[in-house]
Amino acid sequence: MRRSIATVSLSGTLEEKLHAAAKAGFDGVEIFENDLIASPLRPRQVRDLARSLGLGIDLYQPFRDFEGVDDARLEHNLRRAEEKFALMVELGADTILVCSNATPTAVDDDERAAAQLRRLARTAERYGVRVAYEALAWGSAVNRYAHSWRIVEKADHPSLGVCLDSFHILSRDDDPAGIRDIPGERIFFLQLADAPRMAMDVLQWSRHYRCFPGQGGFDLTTFTDHVLAAGYTGPLSLEVFNDVFRASDAERTAADAMRSLSLLEDSLGRGSGEPRPRAELRRLPEPVDPSGYAFVEVAAEPESARQIRGILSALGFAHTHDHRSKPVQMWHHGDVRLLLNDTDPRLGHTWSGASAVTALGFAVPGPEGAVKRAERLLAPALPRRRDPAESDLHAVAAPDGTAVFFCDQGTEGEAGTAPAWTADFSAPAVADRTEGAATGLVGIDHVGLFQPFDHFDEASLFYRSLLGLAPDENVEMAAPDGLVRSRALAGEGTAPRVVLNVSVLGRGTRADADGGAQHIALACADIFAVAEAMRAAGVKPLPIPDNYYDDLACRTDLRPDTRERMRSGGILHDRDGDGEFWHFYTATVDGRLFFEVVQRIGGYDGYGSVNSAVRMAAQRAEATC
Amino acid sequence: MRRSIATVSLSGTLEEKLHAAAKAGFDGVEIFENDLIASPLRPRQVRDLARSLGLGIDLYQPFRDFEGVDDARLEHNLRRAEEKFALMVELGADTILVCSNATPTAVDDDERAAAQLRRLARTAERYGVRVAYEALAWGSAVNRYAHSWRIVEKADHPSLGVCLDSFHILSRDDDPAGIRDIPGERIFFLQLADAPRMAMDVLQWSRHYRCFPGQGGFDLTTFTDHVLAAGYTGPLSLEVFNDVFRASDAERTAADAMRSLSLLEDSLGRGSGEPRPRAELRRLPEPVDPSGYAFVEVAAEPESARQIRGILSALGFAHTHDHRSKPVQMWHHGDVRLLLNDTDPRLGHTWSGASAVTALGFAVPGPEGAVKRAERLLAPALPRRRDPAESDLHAVAAPDGTAVFFCDQGTEGEAGTAPAWTADFSAPAVADRTEGAATGLVGIDHVGLFQPFDHFDEASLFYRSLLGLAPDENVEMAAPDGLVRSRALAGEGTAPRVVLNVSVLGRGTRADADGGAQHIALACADIFAVAEAMRAAGVKPLPIPDNYYDDLACRTDLRPDTRERMRSGGILHDRDGDGEFWHFYTATVDGRLFFEVVQRIGGYDGYGSVNSAVRMAAQRAEATC
Repeated sequence: MRRSIATVSLSGTLEEKLHAAAKAGFDGVEIFENDLIASPLRPRQVRDLARSLGLGIDLYQPFRDFEGVDDARLEHNLRRAEEKFALMVELGADTILVCSNATPTAVDDDERAAAQLRRLARTAERYGVRVAYEALAWGSAVNRYAHSWRIVEKADHPSLGVCLDSFHILSRDDDPAGIRDIPGERIFFLQLADAPRMAMDVLQWSRHYRCFPGQGGFDLTTFTDHVLAAGYTGPLSLEVFNDVFRASDAERTAADAMRSLSLLEDSLGRGSGEPRPRAELRRLPEPVDPSGYAFVEVAAEPESARQIRGILSALGFAHTHDHRSKPVQMWHHGDVRLLLNDTDPRLGHTWSGASAVTALGFAVPGPEGAVKRAERLLAPALPRRRDPAESDLHAVAAPDGTAVFFCDQGTEGEAGTAPAWTADFSAPAVADRTEGAATGLVGIDHVGLFQPFDHFDEASLFYRSLLGLAPDENVEMAAPDGLVRSRALAGEGTAPRVVLNVSVLGRGTRADADGGAQHIALACADIFAVAEAMRAAGVKPLPIPDNYYDDLACRTDLRPDTRERMRSGGILHDRDGDGEFWHFYTATVDGRLFFEVVQRIGGYDGYGSVNSAVRMAAQRAEATC
Repeated sequence: MRRSIATVSLSGTLEEKLHAAAKAGFDGVEIFENDLIASPLRPRQVRDLARSLGLGIDLYQPFRDFEGVDDARLEHNLRRAEEKFALMVELGADTILVCSNATPTAVDDDERAAAQLRRLARTAERYGVRVAYEALAWGSAVNRYAHSWRIVEKADHPSLGVCLDSFHILSRDDDPAGIRDIPGERIFFLQLADAPRMAMDVLQWSRHYRCFPGQGGFDLTTFTDHVLAAGYTGPLSLEVFNDVFRASDAERTAADAMRSLSLLEDSLGRGSGEPRPRAELRRLPEPVDPSGYAFVEVAAEPESARQIRGILSALGFAHTHDHRSKPVQMWHHGDVRLLLNDTDPRLGHTWSGASAVTALGFAVPGPEGAVKRAERLLAPALPRRRDPAESDLHAVAAPDGTAVFFCDQGTEGEAGTAPAWTADFSAPAVADRTEGAATGLVGIDHVGLFQPFDHFDEASLFYRSLLGLAPDENVEMAAPDGLVRSRALAGEGTAPRVVLNVSVLGRGTRADADGGAQHIALACADIFAVAEAMRAAGVKPLPIPDNYYDDLACRTDLRPDTRERMRSGGILHDRDGDGEFWHFYTATVDGRLFFEVVQRIGGYDGYGSVNSAVRMAAQRAEATC
């Protein structure tokens, strides 16, 4: 199907928007009128530029407050429309979006609205233009798609149809199933937008917080499926008003938008098994179903790497292997593998020099397919120097610059074989080999990555689309220097969990690409034993204030001796239904990287975010002392 | 009256918050429980630190979900409360805020709630603690202050009273007049917060968008007046949850908060003429009633200053005087005075070196009183080197660093005398004197200043409190690189207008102190004549796209020849009721300073913000070509 994007979804001048849309591979654009008015390019120049970029102009929008008016106003509105139709001929746009009247004086009279829209359609016909009538969620009289369709049906003119916008329908919890009853050829246009669920005025919600399908809380697959089932064959077009997208790099946003549409089209193609042609839906390579983390790589300068090795040893990791050709150590604890890169501080292409997670290795059944899917989802491939004898590991860049590897998952466990890529590593000389304490870590529970402010939604969609991880609701946490928003992505069973954090305001060092702390959370079966082993090895946990434990005494029934053990281990606690969560933190290396040890009991599915304010205050105290 | 602030209103650690509150002159604080829990300071240490800083601990808050529960839960809640009472004894806090139960299971039963709160009060009494019960706007059963008072009255225990919070009452449009019927001694605490009017979920509104009294849309003077009329004598305490304040400098925020309370207390003292003692209300020096701009000073490096002189000449200004001791030129047009400082780029204390408005001179009846008022409002005084023969001009720094001068207003007009401060300037040598064209400018309409992101609300309150200007509603405007929020402040009649702009996201160069453009808008009586004179003098206006004029043809009844004249003069148009607004812009010097010429007709009271997107796109085009 044709893929389009509204110019209002992108930042910059109209010219820049067109270039960005073309570069991301869109077939067409909706021209948002204000973008044209503010452009020094005349309509013909816009048409020529779009054509030279391979873009059609699929819609001109919006035309407001046309119908449900008195006769004098109608004549004025028809003249106003005729000027726009003439402009559209210059522009080479054949469909105009007319949105339902939102002025307080609009009359709620279907006969009148239909008659007036029929006159508009007749005028439009003379210019070869089609009118797509849309029910705004905040339209005065018409604010439901079924109502807009009743009026269009009544008006009964071939140049008049409806425009459906997922936001206007789903924001009102309207049932989209009724769309199937509209003849497909009378659906002139389809605008797609997702949005996080928010309890606020729908106009403000619409103008500021829309996002691309897959980034919010709406079910766009089901919605669009209804529209296709009705027989709609026009473009899938994204119309997203978003404060962040308006202010960030247009090419990045356009690629993010295209990733969103590709994922949506693919999910439609896998579809509901309806008996109708879906040949026109482009498919992606098969979804990826990661079984866990193959490894996490950390890079650090020598002094910091020494500190990290101390922490890893105390947590029971052992330095077991070295990479055959690169300055990378493999640290092992059971099946948990961390790679430590401590001699080439310029390895990572966005690495700042402070200790950081630079790569995530995901264990997947078919790495080649995963790479193909990632490429089709416009994930930037990372160059990788490769020795002929080494594994063919492909990496793509996540929106924050972290390298994402797809690794053969091997068959772990007692009778298993090591994944093929581990053959790139050989055991180190015995003299270098560090053994850790036995602490019973059982896996990597999650990795937490602070995101650059502009790319939070993009990152969420990146992990969702490439790895099939499902995003949780956003959580907000109060740090001493401002609010932090957190969104976890998780899959089923042992699938990896990724936690994305971002500064709520785009301010301060943590709003930038190399700001904010990253962490690796290690799962264990006995938090007290791990805490004790770490302390016995001479490594202290992040100190948690006594006031925290006093408060626990007030609000939980934890026994005094348990609280005492928690206090000495810096251990925190959360509860969720029948589940419990225990966790502690290490010191933060370079103010940038820390480790967490967690124990989940009884189906607890969160991340202890109730304790994050205490953790961030303690880290702030740690940083200033 | 005592002045307090909740620690949640300020950024940083608890220790930093206490220091900031003390430095701004507060008498006490409310300790927000999470701030204590996250602090390494034990309650006694907090008490000792507060005492050493001269701060009382006026409230411990909040205690949640206590009442309207079943019996088992009640016992649990009482134990929980008793632990907190013991903590409060350590902390030296004698009042706890108990907010109404907001859990879905809370029972709506006044008898039960009263009986349970009576038990709580009895327990509290043993610890010497008072319980202040507050109706949360989103409380499940109790969410109106009158309801909370009915329950407190029914419970009838001397250790139980109500806490009133302006946000919880005014956000629900509840009538605060009924507060007068509550006996003053049963009002245990008063929390004050303002907020912009927003159509959104009240909990989210409360947690993110509160602001200090005078910064939002609530009438805090009338509200507080009711509370004082009831006989309340406790602290005026600010409890403000605000995403920006949480993330910005605590000392700045605390000073802003104190300015807000000073203004509120002063307005209460000027009050409603009620027959009750108001002696305890501190008064400020008399309000300032500026009659207009005495001058606006612009600083620029030599090459930019040459460009500015070209623009000023073309607009009809003449270089008429030089400062006797400083490298400052005075440019005159009728009674409009601009000062141009072009030889000392390091004059302004926050000036970046790019052309900028560095000082605003306001003509006021009594400059000395205005300065005293500004000082009492914690406006930072600016040092000023002064020659013995020169006027005693005092300046204070606005939140963005602009110097604000209070100037003797003289008696302008034909029979008037020049303001005294102009005696600091002498006429330049004839050879240097530049005469401008005669263009009929009549005054400075407004000055537009881009604000650093963190200080937008602070700036609004600064101009409101120092100069008595009233803020308009916020307006949002789409720039090619993101949304801009604009708030105009204006007084009656000829009073000066100031327009504050800020990036909606705290991102990019325009979010910082020296980012974003500033402008001086000059009022005229005949926009076409001024535009023509400027062009005749060889200075071009900011070019406005032809598409703008085509759109005007669609949506207005402006005659074709008028539109043609507008097009050649780069003139834009707006309409507002019966009023009209015409305006054009000059080029932007250094990407930082531009001039606007405006003509208001028939009571138009806006700023042409409908055209701002076109203007900002044109400025972007100008900057990149």
